[in-house]
Amino acid sequence: MSLSRGEAEALDAADPLAGLRQEFDLPDGVIYLDGNSLGPPPRTALARLSRTAAAEWGRDLILSWNLNGWMEAPLRIGGKIARLVGAEPHEVAVADSTSVNLFKLAAGALSLRPGRTTLLAQTGEFPTDLHILQGLAALLGERARLRIVPEGELIAAIDEDTAALVLTHVHYRTSRRWDMAAVTAAAHAKGALALWDVSHSAGAIGVDLNAARADLAVGCGYKHLNGGPGAPAFLFVAERHLGTIRQPLTGWLGHAEPFAFEDLHRPAPDVRALTTGTPPILSLAALEAGIDLHLSVDRAQAEAKGAALSDLFIALVEAGCPELGLASPRRAAERGLHVSLTHKDGYAIVQALAARGVIGDFRAPDVLRFGVSPLFTRFTEVWDAVEALRDILATRAYDRPEHRARKAVT
Amino acid sequence: MSLSRGEAEALDAADPLAGLRQEFDLPDGVIYLDGNSLGPPPRTALARLSRTAAAEWGRDLILSWNLNGWMEAPLRIGGKIARLVGAEPHEVAVADSTSVNLFKLAAGALSLRPGRTTLLAQTGEFPTDLHILQGLAALLGERARLRIVPEGELIAAIDEDTAALVLTHVHYRTSRRWDMAAVTAAAHAKGALALWDVSHSAGAIGVDLNAARADLAVGCGYKHLNGGPGAPAFLFVAERHLGTIRQPLTGWLGHAEPFAFEDLHRPAPDVRALTTGTPPILSLAALEAGIDLHLSVDRAQAEAKGAALSDLFIALVEAGCPELGLASPRRAAERGLHVSLTHKDGYAIVQALAARGVIGDFRAPDVLRFGVSPLFTRFTEVWDAVEALRDILATRAYDRPEHRARKAVT
Repeated sequence: MSLSRGEAEALDAADPLAGLRQEFDLPDGVIYLDGNSLGPPPRTALARLSRTAAAEWGRDLILSWNLNGWMEAPLRIGGKIARLVGAEPHEVAVADSTSVNLFKLAAGALSLRPGRTTLLAQTGEFPTDLHILQGLAALLGERARLRIVPEGELIAAIDEDTAALVLTHVHYRTSRRWDMAAVTAAAHAKGALALWDVSHSAGAIGVDLNAARADLAVGCGYKHLNGGPGAPAFLFVAERHLGTIRQPLTGWLGHAEPFAFEDLHRPAPDVRALTTGTPPILSLAALEAGIDLHLSVDRAQAEAKGAALSDLFIALVEAGCPELGLASPRRAAERGLHVSLTHKDGYAIVQALAARGVIGDFRAPDVLRFGVSPLFTRFTEVWDAVEALRDILATRAYDRPEHRARKAVT
Repeated sequence: MSLSRGEAEALDAADPLAGLRQEFDLPDGVIYLDGNSLGPPPRTALARLSRTAAAEWGRDLILSWNLNGWMEAPLRIGGKIARLVGAEPHEVAVADSTSVNLFKLAAGALSLRPGRTTLLAQTGEFPTDLHILQGLAALLGERARLRIVPEGELIAAIDEDTAALVLTHVHYRTSRRWDMAAVTAAAHAKGALALWDVSHSAGAIGVDLNAARADLAVGCGYKHLNGGPGAPAFLFVAERHLGTIRQPLTGWLGHAEPFAFEDLHRPAPDVRALTTGTPPILSLAALEAGIDLHLSVDRAQAEAKGAALSDLFIALVEAGCPELGLASPRRAAERGLHVSLTHKDGYAIVQALAARGVIGDFRAPDVLRFGVSPLFTRFTEVWDAVEALRDILATRAYDRPEHRARKAVT
């Protein structure tokens, strides 16, 4: 298949979501294919952030906790995220970072499965997830162990000592999407829990935690949810575990009566028990704007467009860039919204693309990642990006010192 | 003593820091005496937040991690806070919330004192600190225990099983200030560590962690440091413990090479090992503006003015409001920058004051708190606030249903 630019223009013209692009103020001359790492700001996020800072923090000061809904923000925004991930509003809270939330829920999984000690994960998993599980296991000594096995051995490795299987729904490097319902069922068959990291899927593809019978989940606010750099993360606890789960980061916000100022911690009876410290109001303002934008979009249309964009990207790359390997599944239903390619000079190629205004990213040793978004990516941008990639490869334009020079953040 | 308003005006006229008030855009008609709970925004914070959101997040997008110093923000801002708390720049990092940081450092204290199991704290301590220690102790089972004793028994309770004494430098309810050096020395005499919470002292009074030989500390960004509601917190690890301390929240940001994307966590050799997840850039932008403002101020002048303001507050209250008890130490050197009064109708009195534009806060069952700031409080505001308080008491203006009605957040 080799689609012409005119045909890409026709796809944009027929796109029912094309108008959403106006919700963003993306810089001229840039094709942004890294929303899977940092989503761009909706215009409303900038406005809401200013208002929260000037009118709420600056004018109402401490009274904002009552006047402006600050105290309710973690559960209010969690309830909105719930609608994007197939959860009930009372099952989701916004809190902390993905890493901190994973710590809470992994410890929580052990509390729900007393007598079991194994946390099971795969090699090559999103590093911070493995790192957090290592930290928890090291802290707990003989009461917990982390078992990391290759992807292909994972399901068979679930056993009667497994407290929880911990997996990212869409893999950060390959974009491979697990069948959440099937994997969760396999965990349940051995009495284990399924703890999902939906950081690379929430807001990107269909996520239905309750349909899959997921037990626990964490997710990121700043990738496909457009919540801002380092935005607060979220966590999900299935209703059947609320009230039973125990997590160790028992801060004041998770107390049954935060303003009782008691010495003894009594956990809140609901998902607030999974929150810890004071809500980061400024960051939450930006996050809520991103979530609200996502909620305004027809999910079926968004999923169809996301699949079409990434399918187009793959088709054009395979037609025009034979030097590149495809590290992602070819079927959209088995992927997230980023496409991963391989090339030994991947780093320099990504830099050369950036010099032409096409922003993707690189993951060592050889993966080039390009993410699309049904909210702001145009079909013509996909076409233009692959054309730039094709040209850079054909002319070896990447083979220059300035493109090979490593930056601090890749 | 009974100072006239004219004399208060003279104090303002002679105040070398009076001009700092212009750095804030406080609302008309409000006397804000709650900066100890939520510091107001410096004008520069609003500007910096807008710039970070629009120009960095919105224009440079993912490239901001390299272009705009995002990756270095936790240690850069930590290094600035270090100058306010008597630490070296490489001993402080900004991360997470105070509660989460306390969890990390309390676990870290246990790692530094193998064989010891006791975390020692006082009854009536800042609740979230006790709650977090309870969560850690519950998680660790027989490997840790939390011992909570009355303030007067605390020093005597330090023993050979004490891994760390955990204390807030300035008490949230009474404003009582511990002698950090003396208490730390008492801990060290038994081989225990001293872990200080400087949430109510950093940015308010003189804090000199290294002069006191403090081992570990956490602190809040949104009270006296004016970092914004729910601002990121900070943590301090004395140089002699860096490289040895082990904390359990081992996220990607604390990895020796965050972009190596390794399965195995290798902690950074420096204070970055105490960080966990992706830095909250928007919140950090506001926090850094607050810190920069504090760094622009002569610390000796600020401490002298803070003591004078709170001394004046107490003197005027004692002269004009005999119904009120004083819950804070009378000597400024033994207090923080908030003054705590007691009255059985404290809640209604605080509400009645708020209705007149004087903002303090209330802590159950009977404490009224009023905080001053050398950056933005005027001596005449102290005078006017106490005059309002005197009048409300004299006329029993607080004794109305609308002032007694409880709000969600007190």
